[in-house]
Amino acid sequence: MAKSLGRHIVAEFYECDKDILDDVDKIEELMKKASIESGATLVTSTFHRFLPHGVSGAVIVSESHFAIHTWPEYGYASVDIYTCGDHVDPWKGFEFLKKAFNSQRAQTVEHLRGVYEEIGIDENSPHKVEA
Amino acid sequence: MAKSLGRHIVAEFYECDKDILDDVDKIEELMKKASIESGATLVTSTFHRFLPHGVSGAVIVSESHFAIHTWPEYGYASVDIYTCGDHVDPWKGFEFLKKAFNSQRAQTVEHLRGVYEEIGIDENSPHKVEA
Repeated sequence: MAKSLGRHIVAEFYECDKDILDDVDKIEELMKKASIESGATLVTSTFHRFLPHGVSGAVIVSESHFAIHTWPEYGYASVDIYTCGDHVDPWKGFEFLKKAFNSQRAQTVEHLRGVYEEIGIDENSPHKVEA
Repeated sequence: MAKSLGRHIVAEFYECDKDILDDVDKIEELMKKASIESGATLVTSTFHRFLPHGVSGAVIVSESHFAIHTWPEYGYASVDIYTCGDHVDPWKGFEFLKKAFNSQRAQTVEHLRGVYEEIGIDENSPHKVEA
């Protein structure tokens, strides 16, 4: 696989617990826990609850970000799990959230972000983590 | 094309202006302007400058989010432009940022997020925008 600065999981969580998806405090807590489960380090975050329903928010970590938008009325959550560096595993965050949301079905696409060859970084360089 | 709640452009900006990519105030200003250029409505945001260099941040808009991570040392910026609803155009934000960063080369992948059929929304429903 090509070397890259980061990995980004674009995740769609279907058939989730609707009450959890509409609870901004719970969502913020779970997104922060997911980033810690992945091995990431929290830097800053912002969350917002919409009227009549739905939550949006992002957690910036030293290794990139975790973002979410929820549609409780559909039991659907749109989540981005983006981490940089070898010491983190975005899939651990994904599995944590799938369970926490009680999602019965999920779809994912994984992107390599910042592919060394495209940027012009020597392939033999170690993974770079902004910290 | 399938109907979806949102569109998400995963963008890689190469060969950017390195000084801009390391200026947290400028990056926050440009990301907010990009969201407005797309027709989105600002809700909240958070940005952080890393040491020795690099900026990360996210702008939550009523229509989803704009997020960025920069590696000034490589002239590279990793950007997510995610909007919901027919009244916004994420590509306007993309074009704005490409010019603002003076990026000489970019790559994009566009995702449909929250495809109606997957969620179980009637295909004849209007686009949903959380506001």
